[in-house]
Amino acid sequence: MGRERLYLFDTTLRDGQQTPGTDFSVEDKIAIAGLLDEFGMDYVEGGYPGANPTDTAFFAEPRTASANFVAFGMTKRAGVSASNDPGLAALVQSKSDAICFVAKSWDYHVRIALGCTNEENLEAIKASVEAAIASAKEALVDCEHFFDGFKANPDYALACARTAYDAGARWVVLCDTNGGTQPSEVRAIVEKVIASGIPGDHLGIHAHDDTGQAVANSLAAVEAGVRQIQGTLNGIGERCGNANLISIVPTLALKPAFSNRFETGISAEALAGISRLSRAFDELLNRAPEAQAPYVGASAFATKAGIHASALAKEPATYEHVPPEAVGNRRRVMVSDQGGKANFLAELKRRGIDMPRDDHRLDALIAVVKEREAEGYAYEGADASFELLARKMLHGLPEFFSVTSFRCMVERRFDANGQLKTVSEAIVKVMVDGEEKMSVAEGHGPVNALDIALRKDLGKFQNEIADLELADFKVRILNGGTEAITRVLIESHDATGARWWTVGVSENIIDASFQALMDSIVYKLMKNREMAGLVARSRIEPSAKVH
Amino acid sequence: MGRERLYLFDTTLRDGQQTPGTDFSVEDKIAIAGLLDEFGMDYVEGGYPGANPTDTAFFAEPRTASANFVAFGMTKRAGVSASNDPGLAALVQSKSDAICFVAKSWDYHVRIALGCTNEENLEAIKASVEAAIASAKEALVDCEHFFDGFKANPDYALACARTAYDAGARWVVLCDTNGGTQPSEVRAIVEKVIASGIPGDHLGIHAHDDTGQAVANSLAAVEAGVRQIQGTLNGIGERCGNANLISIVPTLALKPAFSNRFETGISAEALAGISRLSRAFDELLNRAPEAQAPYVGASAFATKAGIHASALAKEPATYEHVPPEAVGNRRRVMVSDQGGKANFLAELKRRGIDMPRDDHRLDALIAVVKEREAEGYAYEGADASFELLARKMLHGLPEFFSVTSFRCMVERRFDANGQLKTVSEAIVKVMVDGEEKMSVAEGHGPVNALDIALRKDLGKFQNEIADLELADFKVRILNGGTEAITRVLIESHDATGARWWTVGVSENIIDASFQALMDSIVYKLMKNREMAGLVARSRIEPSAKVH
Repeated sequence: MGRERLYLFDTTLRDGQQTPGTDFSVEDKIAIAGLLDEFGMDYVEGGYPGANPTDTAFFAEPRTASANFVAFGMTKRAGVSASNDPGLAALVQSKSDAICFVAKSWDYHVRIALGCTNEENLEAIKASVEAAIASAKEALVDCEHFFDGFKANPDYALACARTAYDAGARWVVLCDTNGGTQPSEVRAIVEKVIASGIPGDHLGIHAHDDTGQAVANSLAAVEAGVRQIQGTLNGIGERCGNANLISIVPTLALKPAFSNRFETGISAEALAGISRLSRAFDELLNRAPEAQAPYVGASAFATKAGIHASALAKEPATYEHVPPEAVGNRRRVMVSDQGGKANFLAELKRRGIDMPRDDHRLDALIAVVKEREAEGYAYEGADASFELLARKMLHGLPEFFSVTSFRCMVERRFDANGQLKTVSEAIVKVMVDGEEKMSVAEGHGPVNALDIALRKDLGKFQNEIADLELADFKVRILNGGTEAITRVLIESHDATGARWWTVGVSENIIDASFQALMDSIVYKLMKNREMAGLVARSRIEPSAKVH
Repeated sequence: MGRERLYLFDTTLRDGQQTPGTDFSVEDKIAIAGLLDEFGMDYVEGGYPGANPTDTAFFAEPRTASANFVAFGMTKRAGVSASNDPGLAALVQSKSDAICFVAKSWDYHVRIALGCTNEENLEAIKASVEAAIASAKEALVDCEHFFDGFKANPDYALACARTAYDAGARWVVLCDTNGGTQPSEVRAIVEKVIASGIPGDHLGIHAHDDTGQAVANSLAAVEAGVRQIQGTLNGIGERCGNANLISIVPTLALKPAFSNRFETGISAEALAGISRLSRAFDELLNRAPEAQAPYVGASAFATKAGIHASALAKEPATYEHVPPEAVGNRRRVMVSDQGGKANFLAELKRRGIDMPRDDHRLDALIAVVKEREAEGYAYEGADASFELLARKMLHGLPEFFSVTSFRCMVERRFDANGQLKTVSEAIVKVMVDGEEKMSVAEGHGPVNALDIALRKDLGKFQNEIADLELADFKVRILNGGTEAITRVLIESHDATGARWWTVGVSENIIDASFQALMDSIVYKLMKNREMAGLVARSRIEPSAKVH
């Protein structure tokens, strides 16, 4: 049976850039465009060439292999011919496949923001679309404030959309720019647009989340006939964000209300990678991943423990709305739960540790993990620490070296020139092969100094850790207040490209950092060796980072 | 024109308790129930008396003044009479005004989870409702998995709902327990329920956010005829959370599609306090507030700078979907923007600093703030630091004392008993009134030690800071990686009940903490004094905390 094609238009790099605190470099944009292209987005809107140097540089080369690479910009200025408009020229000259023009479609904005007549605005829309087409690029038009504009002056809003369509635009996108439109209103207005003569397969929807309904508005528009959906990864965007494509794509693919009728450019394999895509994007932005995000959040399939002990477990569809594997996520069960033992074994297996189910050491390990998690350890985001703990308890690990003592000092004082400066110093005593080594180091701060001192002289292991580098450092205060516990997560990498996370928990931030640093070094040393016997070593896959 | 009454049912303390990492004490529940009662919720579901000691204790007293206080629990067990069911007895004996029974309405669950017949389940629903009514309590029935159950066996799902209604339940609540139902399906199924003979004014909706559409599902159900909405504060709840009442209430009140037809128990004054309610709840849970939350998020009305410089500024409705003041929120503009000068002046006025607009010191202050914000200072969440900076630049502040130097040390070593322990010590040299004072202190960690040492001996100011206490401490690593900048936010309070936040930024976490601690003490000293001349002192209102 023929399904209709829905097109996905990603504006992470353009509208998403308006998110408070977000700033993409050219390198960031290239990386993200690659992820979006590979994922299967039909359109990747990269930015606004001519408006700022980053975007101009980004559009100096084509950046996508299969997705349409889209340049965004304003319609031609009134009173200037298309060929004399420098903004338009920058769009046409960019290495994009398509141009998406933002056009006023609310008469109030035309008058006050543009300062031209309604007619001049329509003429500008027409001329801009024609200029794009003449330069062999696909033309799209974002009708800004369309729904509010339609409520204020429906004839004019429709005239703007119609002008774009008649001029040859491949897509006319209805934008809920202020984000306040309700799904029932979206549906009614889209029906009127289609009734006015613009076919749904040339219409798009661009929703914002100001009432918490951007996803619903997007899907309501599709139900009403629209065939392009604009959104961003993880719903980033200004104010409350744009429609979250990470939430929309799985619904389109897995909910019969949509999957029976529509198909997108996202394959089942790509869908199974959507959790990883979402997390990779958060990593790039140094954002804490949203644990409760639909489909991809760490808690999205965190089921109540009782269910697994019950007969319902045979039929996951009775308590899970979609299979977590379909979106690359997994069921999360408290590891201490009896019903969760199977999941715990699966976690160990994932790390290359094969255990018989009835091994008593497994119960001891589960008990320790439960206790540590209650203290604040988050093994979800610290695979390497978890693996070390498991190996230590299950088959023991050699003690490569031990730290006899350390001392960290931060001093702020006036230097010889009368300038206030802060100095951080760490002294570490380690025992390697029965020999005590003492090292001192300075650093940006106490943890940096401790890290350097700790790795300065580890005797016979020194060469092995030469390529070990600290890549990232996250601090989280748990419980708040003055009795706070500090959780430190450290990401390390080495020359092989392997990356791993370790964790430390203490009321003392230096102590917590020290635990995470120790685990990182020991993990590196363990990784360098074949572990004989019970276990097969496996490289840790990057997993969800917990903040 | 008569508007219909919509009823709000808050299940923060019951379903919300299932949120990973959430655990309410009896005191927490009493505080939150009070907030919900005062806000105007019609129903406050407090928990499950008999199921755990906290809830049993919570229901030992009535806890709301105007809202219906609701006890939740399961329907009568099959094969046991109502009077012999201890679970039912606990519900009836509790000091609630109403009982909300969760009933199976999906035949598969009846068979596999309850292990009884369909008929026995209906009988249990009837007997439970009758028991509640007989004890002079209002009866509600949550039809669990209703939408999935309806899709699987519509006749049985309807029979469950009808049985509850016929037995005298005031409300029959249709629950999307797995969270996967789409708004169009909700609408269609609700219509069928009403057509089967249960009037909309006895129907409720209980949605979950597993596809990001809990709000939309709730509102779609209302459009189809339902008149009770169940949800939680800030959308907490298991997996992806429950329907967010903080998002729903403003939409019902401010969007004509709803406000023309419906009214709730939330007054306009209460609505203007909804941002504060949302933040107070996050504080209680020690959760980072969601900056991009609809209506109440710090960024919900963060407009692009250019708008304010333009003529659009005259008509906020052209770029803002609702007035931020209606929900107790405000426009946020980058303080450094020229167009933002008016907002900057408003910020100063809010803190009791009255400046003429063309004062040149204002430009200098804006420049410094812009520079500092680029370095990582977040004045949004550190009112006291901002006020100190402003006063310092605008009219100067006395230098109460200065810190000549400090030294922080963390040492981990074996003590006399051969136990590994970590000790933190700080030494501070301060100059007060031309006299140098040197103090040493130990603490849980380096920052705690520094805080104690700093406040140990401030000479003539010592009495003034005796009631100064550090209430909270937040650390955020900016920019990530090894060149990370650390931002520290400290919350302080004193005996007057005033609370204020201060900030510090540095690559060195001790340095950053030191800045925030200094600001806290200086702010306290400044607050203690009347500031003569240009400024009127004003107490800082608790503001949005930035993480």
